[in-house]
Amino acid sequence: MRIGIDIGGTSMTAALVDGASVSFKQRSATAGLRTEDALINTVFETVDRLFAESGISKSEISSMGIGVPGRTDIATGTAILAGNLPVRNTCFKKLLEDRYGIVTYLDNDANCAAWGEYSVGIGKGLDDMVMVTLGTGIGGGIIIDGKILHGQKNRAGELGHQVVDIHGKRCPCGRVGCWETVASTKAMASRVAQEVMAVPYGILADVVNENGGKIDGRTLFIALKRGDRVAMDLFDEYIEMLSVGILNILEAFRPQMLVIGGGVSKEGDVLLLPLRKLIGETPCRIETSALADEAGLIGAALLDLSQK
Amino acid sequence: MRIGIDIGGTSMTAALVDGASVSFKQRSATAGLRTEDALINTVFETVDRLFAESGISKSEISSMGIGVPGRTDIATGTAILAGNLPVRNTCFKKLLEDRYGIVTYLDNDANCAAWGEYSVGIGKGLDDMVMVTLGTGIGGGIIIDGKILHGQKNRAGELGHQVVDIHGKRCPCGRVGCWETVASTKAMASRVAQEVMAVPYGILADVVNENGGKIDGRTLFIALKRGDRVAMDLFDEYIEMLSVGILNILEAFRPQMLVIGGGVSKEGDVLLLPLRKLIGETPCRIETSALADEAGLIGAALLDLSQK
Repeated sequence: MRIGIDIGGTSMTAALVDGASVSFKQRSATAGLRTEDALINTVFETVDRLFAESGISKSEISSMGIGVPGRTDIATGTAILAGNLPVRNTCFKKLLEDRYGIVTYLDNDANCAAWGEYSVGIGKGLDDMVMVTLGTGIGGGIIIDGKILHGQKNRAGELGHQVVDIHGKRCPCGRVGCWETVASTKAMASRVAQEVMAVPYGILADVVNENGGKIDGRTLFIALKRGDRVAMDLFDEYIEMLSVGILNILEAFRPQMLVIGGGVSKEGDVLLLPLRKLIGETPCRIETSALADEAGLIGAALLDLSQK
Repeated sequence: MRIGIDIGGTSMTAALVDGASVSFKQRSATAGLRTEDALINTVFETVDRLFAESGISKSEISSMGIGVPGRTDIATGTAILAGNLPVRNTCFKKLLEDRYGIVTYLDNDANCAAWGEYSVGIGKGLDDMVMVTLGTGIGGGIIIDGKILHGQKNRAGELGHQVVDIHGKRCPCGRVGCWETVASTKAMASRVAQEVMAVPYGILADVVNENGGKIDGRTLFIALKRGDRVAMDLFDEYIEMLSVGILNILEAFRPQMLVIGGGVSKEGDVLLLPLRKLIGETPCRIETSALADEAGLIGAALLDLSQK
């Protein structure tokens, strides 16, 4: 039995992980945590709670793994920097090993998600797999020959920051026209907002109003299912932008499988069928995540297998 | 001692290769060859000539390697298809092994060039390296953890066909805005032609006239060295287009080194210094090829080491 810990900018989870099966999942909020100490205490408290609720003893846990956003140093198990989280060279490996006496591994969240899908999810049994996680940004995790491609300073796989539109929009990373400026859920929501302004009494606007004026990753898909023409146009545009970056990944890596994760991946075939059509003939399977929200948590728990 | 064979659309070479040292290089034309038989005979004749000129015996050759453009099947040593060459599922491995009784390996030319630089050139001693070859198109060879990344159907590393300009020009591959439409030597020459039309009495036009009206990969650099302002603008533009694709490669792979090959790489620091400035701070070394025109030939000869 292993423990997986998945830390994000709004919440974190810790759970017992046995293969692809997750139990006693404990969740805590991380949004609003201002200091490194507050974050560390939240992690400790959540893992303490996991032990208490499950009644499992430390000796039954073979290893722990932790996935964190942002820059990481996997050799020392350190979270270097992360946009929304108060980490600054926080050595979670040492902190957790000292507290629990269980060997602990750390990697970034996108690598953990890819590792989870590769180990026990949709990519099980393959050698080469690339996973892209569609969210506010676009993350990437690359598995080659059964190993996570870490690259220098564990910064490989920044697939959201490949420039696809040299005359496009500025990305927060500083470059112009990164894939995530056109294909992230945030980019999609921003296009929905524009079109709702332009067509204020259409179905898309209704969906937004019904959601209390909020636009999220599901808005477009709800309007699409109601047959909204504006949503159909936006969706076609989105799928095309998605396909451009995916085709670039295929040109570079030619993996056996490309897995799409993140909230949007729950749309399944609504997303996959038109996407596969645009991708065209290829020996690479295009799939959505099998482990969904738990890919990162499960992959983190199994990190010991990645560092052999 | 090994034999390397490098087949291109205009000529081919075969030579003895000992580490990074090449001797008894034999060249033959391939432009104009219309049939598979004619090409095979040219290869045989060139290798026969190599044996005759060098006086070496077959028993002194431990292995042969052959680099070919286009699609390949490395398991069977087959050249499947190549734009300018009359190959069609031509199984060079079997043909050469049957004729010479020497174990033979085959890979595509960009992979051979990368393997050469990695094994005995500028990338010697590294684990991860990416090479881009700037010519009529842009080829790519990727080394990860000491192995060539082949991908499905040996089609990984098509770095010239990463889309960087979704609103750009159509590429012969069918996509729009591929990197090679803006950063290949052909793209550079096409911009030079445009500017010579616009500024017919400038230094750039002089350089073209002195070259019999022909524009090639050196034209821009000659005008640049003469202080031509148009050439300076074009060069700035070219270096920026080059940097976009290279930065994308760094985001995806974060290799220890990125090597630039192809004719343009001979410009050395003229190319490298402004390019490194645009790339900015990175743990990845940006270098030009050390083996120059012989990278592919040397890498082909050393292919036996790549398939272990």
